[in-house]
This record gives sequence, C-alpha cells and structure tokens, in this order.
Amino acid sequence: MKTIGVVGGGQLGRMMALAAAKLDIQCVFVDPNPDCCAARYGELIQAAYDDQAALKQLADRADVITFEFESVPSEAVEFLSRYKPARPGAKALEVARDRWNEKSLFADLGIPLPKLGLVDSQHDLEKAVASVGLPAVLKTRTLGYDGKGQKVLRVPSDVPGTFSELGEVPMILEGFVDFDYEVSAVVVRDSQGRCRFYPLAHNEHRQGILYQSSVRYDPVLQEKAEAYSQLVLESLDYVGVMAFEFFVKGNELIANEIAPRVHNSGHWSIEGALCSQFENHVRAICDLPVGSCEAPNHVAMINLIGALPKKADICAIAGATYHDYGKQPKPGRKVGHVTIVQSDKAAFDQAVAAVDALIENILA
Amino acid sequence: MKTIGVVGGGQLGRMMALAAAKLDIQCVFVDPNPDCCAARYGELIQAAYDDQAALKQLADRADVITFEFESVPSEAVEFLSRYKPARPGAKALEVARDRWNEKSLFADLGIPLPKLGLVDSQHDLEKAVASVGLPAVLKTRTLGYDGKGQKVLRVPSDVPGTFSELGEVPMILEGFVDFDYEVSAVVVRDSQGRCRFYPLAHNEHRQGILYQSSVRYDPVLQEKAEAYSQLVLESLDYVGVMAFEFFVKGNELIANEIAPRVHNSGHWSIEGALCSQFENHVRAICDLPVGSCEAPNHVAMINLIGALPKKADICAIAGATYHDYGKQPKPGRKVGHVTIVQSDKAAFDQAVAAVDALIENILA
Repeated sequence: MKTIGVVGGGQLGRMMALAAAKLDIQCVFVDPNPDCCAARYGELIQAAYDDQAALKQLADRADVITFEFESVPSEAVEFLSRYKPARPGAKALEVARDRWNEKSLFADLGIPLPKLGLVDSQHDLEKAVASVGLPAVLKTRTLGYDGKGQKVLRVPSDVPGTFSELGEVPMILEGFVDFDYEVSAVVVRDSQGRCRFYPLAHNEHRQGILYQSSVRYDPVLQEKAEAYSQLVLESLDYVGVMAFEFFVKGNELIANEIAPRVHNSGHWSIEGALCSQFENHVRAICDLPVGSCEAPNHVAMINLIGALPKKADICAIAGATYHDYGKQPKPGRKVGHVTIVQSDKAAFDQAVAAVDALIENILA
Repeated sequence: MKTIGVVGGGQLGRMMALAAAKLDIQCVFVDPNPDCCAARYGELIQAAYDDQAALKQLADRADVITFEFESVPSEAVEFLSRYKPARPGAKALEVARDRWNEKSLFADLGIPLPKLGLVDSQHDLEKAVASVGLPAVLKTRTLGYDGKGQKVLRVPSDVPGTFSELGEVPMILEGFVDFDYEVSAVVVRDSQGRCRFYPLAHNEHRQGILYQSSVRYDPVLQEKAEAYSQLVLESLDYVGVMAFEFFVKGNELIANEIAPRVHNSGHWSIEGALCSQFENHVRAICDLPVGSCEAPNHVAMINLIGALPKKADICAIAGATYHDYGKQPKPGRKVGHVTIVQSDKAAFDQAVAAVDALIENILA
C-alpha cells in the first residue's frame, strides 16, 4: 500500500500525512476547500463530498480509502468502497454518524449508557421526557460536533417548542448523566484483528469544545474501557483508529459516543506514545501490524482554539511541542494544539501550568 | 519565519520538512536530482548547487537558508547569505568541510585531537609519516564521507604512491587512534546563544558506514562532550544543529570531526527525545527557543543500508518505528532507518535484537 485516499483535508488529514510520510506512504485528499490545511502535505482533489467524478478520481489514485470525519454521505462511502477498500467501513460510519444507531449498538453489546428516547416530533419529545426524566439532553441524530446540535432541557418549561428550535430533524433525548469527568479511549484494530488501546485521556471542555486531554492511568477504568471498545471494534469488523468517549461516575463508565477516526483527544500520542494514533491508523488501514500504545512519560495536550500564542513563548517551555495547523484563526476554531511531555511529574505540572497561563493570556 | 530554503533535498531535508510542518513552517529545496526524496514535502527548485539563478530563487522564496550537507561551494553560501541569513553561516561551513580547518580549530580551542600533518604532495606525506608515525589515516581535506576519500597506512610500504592514489588533492595525515568506541554529540545553539545537548550516541559502523547509534548515558563523557561542543558552537557563532564525533579511549574524548547539520547519529531523537534534532534545527534557525534534548527512555537507531526489510516485519516489533526515505535501494545507500524506543530495558534489548536479526536476514 503506497497511497491513502482521505475524505477530508483538515488538520487530522494533515497529521495523518505527516505520520504516513515516515513509512513512505502518501495521502491524497478530497476536500471542497482549496486552502484546506492538509493540502501542503498531499495531493488535493478539490470537490464536494458527493461529487462522484472526484470520488472516482480519489479511488483511482489510492490503494485504500479512509475518512477524516464521520459526516460523509453514506452514498459516497458506498460508492468509494465499490472501487477500493474503505477503512473503517460503511457500517462503522453509519453507526457512528447517527446517535440512535450508535446508542442502539452500545445497548445491544451490553455497554452501560444513559437513558434514551427516540424523537421524531414534538409529541415524541414529550413522551421521551416522561420516560427519561429531566434534566436531559436533546441531540440531533446526525451532524452534531463540538456541542453543536444539542440542547439541555432542565425544567418542564424547556420542553415546548424545542423540537422545532433544533430544526425538526430526527433527534434523541438522553438522560442527563451527573458524571465526575469525561474520558476517551483511543483504540485501534488492524486488518488481522489485533487491537491496541491507548491509556485513557481525561478530557476537559470549555464552551463545549475540547480544551485539554491528559493521560492519567487508572487500571480499573482502563480495563473496562478496553473491554467495551473491543466489543465495538469487533462487532463492526473495524479497521483503523476509533475514539470512544465515556462519562465517568465513580468506578463506572457510561458510554457517550464513538468517533470512527483519529481524534482530538489522541493528539497527545504524537509525542507521548511509542506509536502515535496517526501512525497506528495508517498502519492499520495499510495492512501493517499496529504499534505499541504505551505512554512512558507524563503527557497532556491543550488545544489552541480561536487564537495562537507566540511560538517563541510555547517553545521556551521545556517539554512543550507546538502544533500550528496553518489555519486562519477565528472564534471557536481549532487552529493548533500544544503537547506537553515530561518524565518528571513536577516538571510536567509546571510545564502544563505555563502553557495554560499563556493560552489564558491570549484569550483574555 | 515561515519558509526555510534548504540546500539539498535528501532524507535530511525530508525529515526537516516533516518536523517544520508541526510549526507550520515550510521548506523549499534546491537539488539537482528531480526525484530527490524531500521533494514530496516541499517545493523543489531543480538545479545545480552553483546555479546562481536558482540560488537567487531559493533566497527569494525563503526567510532563512540552511544546508543538508556541508560540501556546498563556498561561493554558493556567500551568494545566498547576501540575500537571506544562512544558518549555520559561511564560517561554520568553511571549517566543517575542510578537515585541516576543522582540526586547526579543535587545536586552537584546546580540544584533544589525533596527531596531524598537512599533506599537499607525496613529499609532504613522507614528512608527515615521519612526525605522526604509523599506523595513520590519510584523508582528503574535503568531500569525504561514509569512509570515502581516505586510506589507512599501516606499514612504510603503504606510503609510496598514496598521494596520487587519493587523487593528488589537498590531504591531511592523522595519527591512528586506538579507540575503544566512537560517540557523537548532537548539539544545538539558537539565535539567542542558548545551547542544548543530546545525550551521547554510541556509534557502530559497518564497511565505513554508520550502522547503529544507541543512547547510553555516561556523565563523565557527557560533560566533556558538552564542554568541547560549546567551545566550537560559540567560536563559530553557530546557529542550528551540529554533530561532533569523538573517539573514546577510557574516559577521554579525542575529537574526530564535526558535521554542520542534522546528523544520522541523531535520527533516534525523532521518537526518542522530547524535541528531535530536526525540530531543534528548525527552531534554532527560525529564531525560536530550542527544546529539551532529554531522552527519557531507552533508544537506539539502526540504519537501513542498501535494502529495506518488510514493513510488516519491523512494525510487528513493539517500540520499533520504520522510516523509509522513498529512495531506490542500491548497495551502500542509506534508504531508511528504524528507531527502537522502550521504557523497559529487557523489552528494549529484545526489540533491538529483533530488528538487527531482520536486517541481517535481508542482507544475507
């Protein structure tokens, strides 16, 4: 396998291309944006995701197809997989991009999840509120990300009119989980069925957008996350990297959602793991054995959202690595991230605090 | 600084471009070879190194100029530095590409070095043999690498005719050092004069070509290597990464040579150090503070020379990372390398042995 066809040309594609380069594997991207940030590190086919001529061109150029995001029309995935293996496959994408399908799979596999109701009308919503209870979160079944396409319902007066407020599209109502914190399991399965699991990342959000992911090893939670993830990977005959987000309540994990791709909460692995999520995704989809997910040092990742600190300021912090995606900063947009790796805990904590302070400063 | 102009487009340039990408800094290369392996990750100006129009184009495109190898005509460096800062500068290149200048600098700085004679004729050679003694190594002053352009003189009968055998070019005669092993110090100095030092790599050669570099921390040798390196960096007002090769005899270091660039014996740092030699070179020449050179785990690098093992075989070894430069394999040509990183010493030794065995196998 020498060429990966990637649907999407954002920062995930860019980091994938940089990881693939080590193995002398190249990426070709399809993206409607001519200035998409992956284009500098691979050929770009500039086209809409439903442009069949462009998709055919992508398939012709590639040995295998993969995805940078899950909101791809299922027809596009079907079409692509007629010509070249699509990894992960159509089934994984169908499940992951629809919250109802996703949650139904969790339920089928016996993975703990919040109370749930299917909502196709205001009437359904009222019924769902009666069974799920309040507070609850109403979410569109598809196209939600970074907290978009959802609304928290706290009291009965929040319910009327909410179905039309979120656009009268298919939705689910999810019982509110009073969780302690959130974690994500970034996991990978190769074409021979070998699974590897990164240590859980603790995620902290700001305004609904991931701000920080830190690796803190917890054997009890880790074991549960690996077992649940493996069930999902195997039931979908999944090939590649998948992220599985959980709510943590005491020693329990409650499934939130999966992302059928490399994930922001795994960016720490570029510097922090023996084999990064990007390299492991490339290896898996290219029929190579997956590498070790071990994180031998203290590691955290902090997102740069809406603005970039000065490179010199970040580079002056020992153990900090600056990633600038080459995107135009605008409010709420992920434009880069910083990884902090240190072998010494005190040095690590100090470096994380220093990065955090710099970012607070530019956002103030 | 957004664009680095790189003289040379081989694997060192390629790995530099991949490191620069994190910082959203791009590389533009000048190289006579249209298929040079860096070209996939940066714009290529295909031209000879003395083509002034091409060099002017490189300078126009770039914010700063750097070098992938030291055998650049000094006129080219002079010409480039008229337009943009060249880092390292003309002085460093002049010293490093000429063994006599290099050794004279070591002597001036009080750095231990082998006995030495300047050889511009067969008559000079005979005089030098009388003062240096035998065995000794005759080396061309310029253009030697990977054991090329040199000859060991063991007995008096080796001396006659040797000056013409090596091409009647300016040479030096170096007293043979009966060393225990070789190490290299990969070091970096930024534009503010901050120096950082990677831990010493122990180098093992095969047929005159570097085969393996392993990091084994030795505080006594490390301190000496850092002191000697810092003298050289400061005397040359050096900016960027430099490699300093030493012979080790007991607890003593004897200077062998410097390379004014990122170096094969520092490739382990991509996966093995908090900040790689490539990123540190980019940072230094782009006016950014240099990063930590700490290697928190066991790490070694093995070169792939003349042939490539199967990717799947290397990827199956835990902690091994495969680098394929995308070059056509031919005997004696460096076509890739494998880095081995492990936190556990037994797992590390096992992984190194496994990689070594695979390579022995393909070369057998």
